[in-house]
Amino acid sequence: MEQREMKELLQQVAEGNATVDEALLKMKMAPFEEIDIASLDHHRGIRQGASEVIYGAGKTPAQIDKIAHTLWNSGQKTILITRMSQEAAETFEKDIPFTYYEEAKVGLVGEMTAPKQKGYILVATGGTSDIPVAEEAALTAEILGNRVERIYDVGVAGIHRLLAHAEKIMNARVIIAIAGMEGALASVIGGLADCPVIAVPTSVGYGTAFGGVTALLSMLNSCASGVSVVNIDNGFGAGYLANLINNMEADK
Amino acid sequence: MEQREMKELLQQVAEGNATVDEALLKMKMAPFEEIDIASLDHHRGIRQGASEVIYGAGKTPAQIDKIAHTLWNSGQKTILITRMSQEAAETFEKDIPFTYYEEAKVGLVGEMTAPKQKGYILVATGGTSDIPVAEEAALTAEILGNRVERIYDVGVAGIHRLLAHAEKIMNARVIIAIAGMEGALASVIGGLADCPVIAVPTSVGYGTAFGGVTALLSMLNSCASGVSVVNIDNGFGAGYLANLINNMEADK
Amino acid sequence: MEQREMKELLQQVAEGNATVDEALLKMKMAPFEEIDIASLDHHRGIRQGASEVIYGAGKTPAQIDKIAHTLWNSGQKTILITRMSQEAAETFEKDIPFTYYEEAKVGLVGEMTAPKQKGYILVATGGTSDIPVAEEAALTAEILGNRVERIYDVGVAGIHRLLAHAEKIMNARVIIAIAGMEGALASVIGGLADCPVIAVPTSVGYGTAFGGVTALLSMLNSCASGVSVVNIDNGFGAGYLANLINNMEADK
Amino acid sequence: MEQREMKELLQQVAEGNATVDEALLKMKMAPFEEIDIASLDHHRGIRQGASEVIYGAGKTPAQIDKIAHTLWNSGQKTILITRMSQEAAETFEKDIPFTYYEEAKVGLVGEMTAPKQKGYILVATGGTSDIPVAEEAALTAEILGNRVERIYDVGVAGIHRLLAHAEKIMNARVIIAIAGMEGALASVIGGLADCPVIAVPTSVGYGTAFGGVTALLSMLNSCASGVSVVNIDNGFGAGYLANLINNMEADK
Amino acid sequence: MEQREMKELLQQVAEGNATVDEALLKMKMAPFEEIDIASLDHHRGIRQGASEVIYGAGKTPAQIDKIAHTLWNSGQKTILITRMSQEAAETFEKDIPFTYYEEAKVGLVGEMTAPKQKGYILVATGGTSDIPVAEEAALTAEILGNRVERIYDVGVAGIHRLLAHAEKIMNARVIIAIAGMEGALASVIGGLADCPVIAVPTSVGYGTAFGGVTALLSMLNSCASGVSVVNIDNGFGAGYLANLINNMEADK
Amino acid sequence: MEQREMKELLQQVAEGNATVDEALLKMKMAPFEEIDIASLDHHRGIRQGASEVIYGAGKTPAQIDKIAHTLWNSGQKTILITRMSQEAAETFEKDIPFTYYEEAKVGLVGEMTAPKQKGYILVATGGTSDIPVAEEAALTAEILGNRVERIYDVGVAGIHRLLAHAEKIMNARVIIAIAGMEGALASVIGGLADCPVIAVPTSVGYGTAFGGVTALLSMLNSCASGVSVVNIDNGFGAGYLANLINNMEADK
Amino acid sequence: MEQREMKELLQQVAEGNATVDEALLKMKMAPFEEIDIASLDHHRGIRQGASEVIYGAGKTPAQIDKIAHTLWNSGQKTILITRMSQEAAETFEKDIPFTYYEEAKVGLVGEMTAPKQKGYILVATGGTSDIPVAEEAALTAEILGNRVERIYDVGVAGIHRLLAHAEKIMNARVIIAIAGMEGALASVIGGLADCPVIAVPTSVGYGTAFGGVTALLSMLNSCASGVSVVNIDNGFGAGYLANLINNMEADK
Amino acid sequence: MEQREMKELLQQVAEGNATVDEALLKMKMAPFEEIDIASLDHHRGIRQGASEVIYGAGKTPAQIDKIAHTLWNSGQKTILITRMSQEAAETFEKDIPFTYYEEAKVGLVGEMTAPKQKGYILVATGGTSDIPVAEEAALTAEILGNRVERIYDVGVAGIHRLLAHAEKIMNARVIIAIAGMEGALASVIGGLADCPVIAVPTSVGYGTAFGGVTALLSMLNSCASGVSVVNIDNGFGAGYLANLINNMEADK
Repeated sequence: MEQREMKELLQQVAEGNATVDEALLKMKMAPFEEIDIASLDHHRGIRQGASEVIYGAGKTPAQIDKIAHTLWNSGQKTILITRMSQEAAETFEKDIPFTYYEEAKVGLVGEMTAPKQKGYILVATGGTSDIPVAEEAALTAEILGNRVERIYDVGVAGIHRLLAHAEKIMNARVIIAIAGMEGALASVIGGLADCPVIAVPTSVGYGTAFGGVTALLSMLNSCASGVSVVNIDNGFGAGYLANLINNMEADK
Repeated sequence: MEQREMKELLQQVAEGNATVDEALLKMKMAPFEEIDIASLDHHRGIRQGASEVIYGAGKTPAQIDKIAHTLWNSGQKTILITRMSQEAAETFEKDIPFTYYEEAKVGLVGEMTAPKQKGYILVATGGTSDIPVAEEAALTAEILGNRVERIYDVGVAGIHRLLAHAEKIMNARVIIAIAGMEGALASVIGGLADCPVIAVPTSVGYGTAFGGVTALLSMLNSCASGVSVVNIDNGFGAGYLANLINNMEADK
Repeated sequence: MEQREMKELLQQVAEGNATVDEALLKMKMAPFEEIDIASLDHHRGIRQGASEVIYGAGKTPAQIDKIAHTLWNSGQKTILITRMSQEAAETFEKDIPFTYYEEAKVGLVGEMTAPKQKGYILVATGGTSDIPVAEEAALTAEILGNRVERIYDVGVAGIHRLLAHAEKIMNARVIIAIAGMEGALASVIGGLADCPVIAVPTSVGYGTAFGGVTALLSMLNSCASGVSVVNIDNGFGAGYLANLINNMEADK
Repeated sequence: MEQREMKELLQQVAEGNATVDEALLKMKMAPFEEIDIASLDHHRGIRQGASEVIYGAGKTPAQIDKIAHTLWNSGQKTILITRMSQEAAETFEKDIPFTYYEEAKVGLVGEMTAPKQKGYILVATGGTSDIPVAEEAALTAEILGNRVERIYDVGVAGIHRLLAHAEKIMNARVIIAIAGMEGALASVIGGLADCPVIAVPTSVGYGTAFGGVTALLSMLNSCASGVSVVNIDNGFGAGYLANLINNMEADK
Repeated sequence: MEQREMKELLQQVAEGNATVDEALLKMKMAPFEEIDIASLDHHRGIRQGASEVIYGAGKTPAQIDKIAHTLWNSGQKTILITRMSQEAAETFEKDIPFTYYEEAKVGLVGEMTAPKQKGYILVATGGTSDIPVAEEAALTAEILGNRVERIYDVGVAGIHRLLAHAEKIMNARVIIAIAGMEGALASVIGGLADCPVIAVPTSVGYGTAFGGVTALLSMLNSCASGVSVVNIDNGFGAGYLANLINNMEADK
Repeated sequence: MEQREMKELLQQVAEGNATVDEALLKMKMAPFEEIDIASLDHHRGIRQGASEVIYGAGKTPAQIDKIAHTLWNSGQKTILITRMSQEAAETFEKDIPFTYYEEAKVGLVGEMTAPKQKGYILVATGGTSDIPVAEEAALTAEILGNRVERIYDVGVAGIHRLLAHAEKIMNARVIIAIAGMEGALASVIGGLADCPVIAVPTSVGYGTAFGGVTALLSMLNSCASGVSVVNIDNGFGAGYLANLINNMEADK
Repeated sequence: MEQREMKELLQQVAEGNATVDEALLKMKMAPFEEIDIASLDHHRGIRQGASEVIYGAGKTPAQIDKIAHTLWNSGQKTILITRMSQEAAETFEKDIPFTYYEEAKVGLVGEMTAPKQKGYILVATGGTSDIPVAEEAALTAEILGNRVERIYDVGVAGIHRLLAHAEKIMNARVIIAIAGMEGALASVIGGLADCPVIAVPTSVGYGTAFGGVTALLSMLNSCASGVSVVNIDNGFGAGYLANLINNMEADK
Repeated sequence: MEQREMKELLQQVAEGNATVDEALLKMKMAPFEEIDIASLDHHRGIRQGASEVIYGAGKTPAQIDKIAHTLWNSGQKTILITRMSQEAAETFEKDIPFTYYEEAKVGLVGEMTAPKQKGYILVATGGTSDIPVAEEAALTAEILGNRVERIYDVGVAGIHRLLAHAEKIMNARVIIAIAGMEGALASVIGGLADCPVIAVPTSVGYGTAFGGVTALLSMLNSCASGVSVVNIDNGFGAGYLANLINNMEADK
């Protein structure tokens, strides 16, 4: 029941057109709708930017195609499609502006958003096999309008490679640290940086890497403060959260 | 070697009061300290505020007492002691200003910091048993100079209790969602809020709650975007990270 | 040994046609059969309705075909085939009435049963990927003669979508709550409803979703009362149990 | 806002003692409470009967005492206290009618409810060590107004002991099957009975019993239909759910 | 109903002292007991010997005392009490012959059974910490009337210690191999012996010994044939099974 | 070094044909061989019968073919090949007597062994999907010269199906109980039988069946005595061990 | 910044050619590089020998080809390629000396290194299925310039097979013990040898072998001293570490 | 039978003081001891040094006291007692030289061994809570005659603290890296050092540290080469292995 409807109902009671009991019953029947439209938006989505997201996994190429076109036709300027298969990209109807980022399995309908800010989100990976997840994170952040810096293959076993980027790390506004295997990258970066660090474990590794569980556990136990963790291989989630943090308005 | 000391040393070289080799040797003797204060602070610590943190677990009351007094005497204005036992609090030498928050097992040396901002961090729990972890998070954030709002015992099984706070949720700058058992609170809050949500699983529950693992897994798989997770019962980590996010400067 | 046989045996002893030892031996030889026929029916099956169930997984198309035809020819009016592959459906001999529900992988021999009741079983899912399991549950219940209402893709991250169905939830006689990922749907529905809630975790998700284990654990730890859980992806089991509950006769 | 209060408010509007806007504002201020008592009670609780439940674990004796007395004084006729420690029972202020069931750790304020029905809930256990959980389940059901039959120590290793109760099993309206170790009781009972079976794994056993996890897994994989499972040692949950099922009104 | 009773009942029928219906009724009243002693004894127990077993864990000293005295007074010659606490042994009423084996936590009422056979069961342990479990196994087998040889602390890390007993291993009729930590003893003994090997993992070890799980897994994966496994620390189970195997009658 | 050789060596020393040091050296050089040939046979193998076993998994069809032919040509009368793929069976050179049991994936070179005994090993399964493992067990036992009785698909959910075979169960010399899902079959059979029961968990089931782990845990925690367990799907191991037990010579 | 550069910078300051602030800035700008080149080499690599390693997994044939050729052309004499697929080997441009070891999936560019030492590394396996991992370890060690002895298929179930190699075991300088299933080989070898033992669990086995986890746990709990463990199937890691140990210079 | 004794026995045979049969018998009586000292010592123990080890866990103070005194009286110069409780140390009979290292729970009978070498073993820990394990490792190595350097509390979250010791790391002959929580120390040190690194996970941490399992998994997946792992908290094992490696003789 919307606020307007509730007002009308009260009005009817006030005017004697509805009894108290009738009104009471009506309110009980539609308990939450009044909140629905007023204060909770439909898809949460991505309100700060002008973007909409389609989660491609488990959707057929045809479904993705249709949703994307519908959104575009309803005026959406930028549409991000994650976990989009090569096949879905190939069969996508190209009558609207479309770019496919193969490594990240990300599709973009519309133009790439120009960065709205000077500061940057840093996306770092431990190895080269982590790059697909990193690109999903980086492109998500870029499409949402953030500047992104990338430093890839800077795993802790060659700590000097990472330290060579110390300045870039220390100047970032938010860092996304992506690693499989032992996932130590998050701790080392967390120790170097002042800013929030979002750790993304990846399913890279074999044997006791357990498909990313070891990296996840390692990251959750990081001895560095300021580190939090998202699900294994969840590049989108990290990029989305980094965008939220990077766009915090200064408090007054 | 702090930046100031390094400058003095260079000054001495420039003035001929130290030879190049003497300076070089001195720098090598303390190989990284010169970088230490300049770009990497010693304990990472808490630079935005004037606070220092002592992790009380595994330290004897005497050790905590000594470290706290040393820090205080060296001019530290606010010292946060986490996981401080009742016993450590009782035997603490009260010749310096000291407050003990029993439920949170948090000790504070010095005065409580006044909030530096208008906006607030929201700390929410699923049940009453989660409150100790919540208070650790809330006090950490407060001592670091943040305004904190608390809504406790708003678990999803009585969803209306949570929804009654919908406005408070939607207006928060950062939310810390704390829950044991099935940990669904993080998802529901994540679905209501626009801001970053830090999920803290707690070891509350029995049987298949597995000491917080179920809540952790649930939170990592949250279908809401913008949610990240810290270790089980890690209230301090959540409060610290919330402080980092809440104090993001606007990007220019 | 049935009661009748036992009586005859005792009769023979009474009449001197059997010795005590002969009778004793005979009783020892067939230890449990007397219970067997009398009190334990052969396949448990589905006695309330007129239906028979074939569990299709691990059976060849030919085996399914043969069993179904045999049951039909022996007079069975409705035969439910679960986990029936596309291939088994295609090669099924269509000389008897047969419908295949592709999404649910359910085959139905005979006509769909008309609902015997006014009240309904509600089948709800967190996402669209949970629909195949949901359809298995819903069709099982329908074929057993229940009215079923479906509300799909009402996951807790968009809590208002779920609340929009609050009335449908509160009026259901039994609810089947189906979700993967963090499985919070069961708790939220359990908090809204008065009736028994059967939670079905699904293998939807990735990484730490662990093929449904996270959803399962979450559901087992539901802070709402009145919730019980079945195996991962066990739509049939939920539909079957819901039918049992929905058809409880009023106690006198 | 309770139903009564909402009625009064509407009354005031009807009588002109409150304007429509005043009423609307008041309703918005307490956004969900108006629905609270009407359609969603505060603790979900136990609406069919006249009972209220206090979960004693993690509450101090004093807290339990106070809540129970408050409820009693506000007119509550029957109050069930689960997981109540011996100490809490001993220090409980006995100025109101109070009974303590030591084995089940259940406290009852008020008189035991007389069964409202002829049919019964059957509570069965595999061993004697499962009895505390069984008694929690049985007393919960009894206090909620159900007839309960108990058959204890009928584990499947002595299958004849269980079969001796075959008639009692087949005539039950709902069965709660409680077992630790290998938890096979649920499957065997599920194979004998037509009615819904609620399986409760217990933490009884050693070594690979893993504190009830083995029994839980066994029950989730029951080859019998009509079986669902609750958390380890969750006697209350089983008793509560059994009550819901046992009190299903016949559908019209 | 024991065999003797059943015979008497049949006798009464044969003699006309009981009608067929009276007998039938009596049999139905105690539905399975008639089979009970004949083909299924009440506690399965230990039929070959004259022993009865009381599982002491979870029973109070008083309960153990009472059960043991009752069994003794009903004519039981040998009663084995497993997992009997020091306290239960001390308070045990010593008016009947009683021996307590402290290390094994085994109590014996009556005299130790003389071995009925020439061949022996070999009980071997990897370390000295496994001895309590080994003694439970050995005493169980001895009380059931078997000869037992013990070789303790012959872990595989000092393989020569084990090989020094090669002859004893090769001449055993059944071997119980007991080990914690990596549990390799079962494989090595399994490779040396021709006879059935019962492997008992123990909870000895630390860290990744995981309370016996590592030894268990190791034993289940033994590359030697003829090895089977019982639950962690289940000395009684191994001794009981060894007795069954050792007393196989030669097939004719 | 065999006893005879050692004697010769000592003889040489006694006769002055070898110095003390030469003898000492020789003994050190061949540290364990004296045991090797004397008391430890080369492949353990299967000495009671005339059979040899080839474990087919991980061997190419050509390797299996070659090993089998070599063994046959060296006089081996019966050769059992386990886990032999369809392909290996098809390409097997049929110039020697060869039978392939497709369901069990067992190959037999030579003639099936006639049972050497009157008593039988009983092989029972919970479901039809367990039959391949059961056939591996049964054929192994048969080829080793045992009589085998099979009762398949007698899972505990239809307990009467199992009880209908009670006599066969009680008369068996050894029982192999094979089940997936909740694995309760072993406990129920263990409760009915007096003889050793070898439990084989199978990887049958889905979701929380965890590829046989649930059945394994259930079997390890069997409340019945006399039950031991082998690895998941290890039909051969069970058949081999059953053969060892069934052929125990009577002790004198 | 290398030591030399830092000296030059200080020199400039001393000579007035750089101001103190200029020098300070320069040092801050390149915070760690001075260590980088001087003391940390770029890829750690394999400095004792003249070898370079390419980890082939996750690289395309073309990438491997390119990296190998580049290294060769830059003067590298020996290049080891691990986890190189059959396909990558076949398409490898053979204009430079190249050998492919199919079983080990190891590629070698350049000539096999001649052993630099008399002593040897022993590589032992429990079964034949472990040989691929063993060959990866052995070839890694050989290419790095070590003598390697191999004893394969000496699992502990036929302990005499292993003991027949006792001398070879006792004379090794380092041993790599490789086994799947129950992984007991490491303990037995550890008990026979004086030298460091590197245990490599393999993913060989089925059911509760859990892809190598059981062997890993077994090895970590080895009751023999001097044993350490690497990741499942990590033959390269073991070979590399064995090379490090084998080439320890005598301490002076 | 020690080598010396065997020689004497052979001497007696050579001199006619013992017959061949007497000698043979004597050798058979102690079947493997003759090999024992020659090729396999009794407890493997610690042959390079003059030390003997007593594993104190699970031994009573009296047992430890007795074994230590027996060893001392038989001429042992240095006896290392690990996991020795405070109580055992206090009640230890001080009539022989005895030192107790409380933090490490290590007892030493005899004098501390002087280092036999110039090079050192480096023992590093991530935090202060890891020190007890580190001291067990360090003291073990020292008592075995090694020089040990310690760098404690150099966890990767403050990477500069670790880098300050880069020279010490690069000059070590063997490194023992000890850490709990996320265990990243091993990877970072492994990336800095050329020498073998023995990683010891500790049970330090909470929540998902899982008693050291997370650190263990992290270390097993180290992206640095040259790292191997021992059991959780196994300081002794690491110290013992480090001693073996540190004392490798140069190969000729």
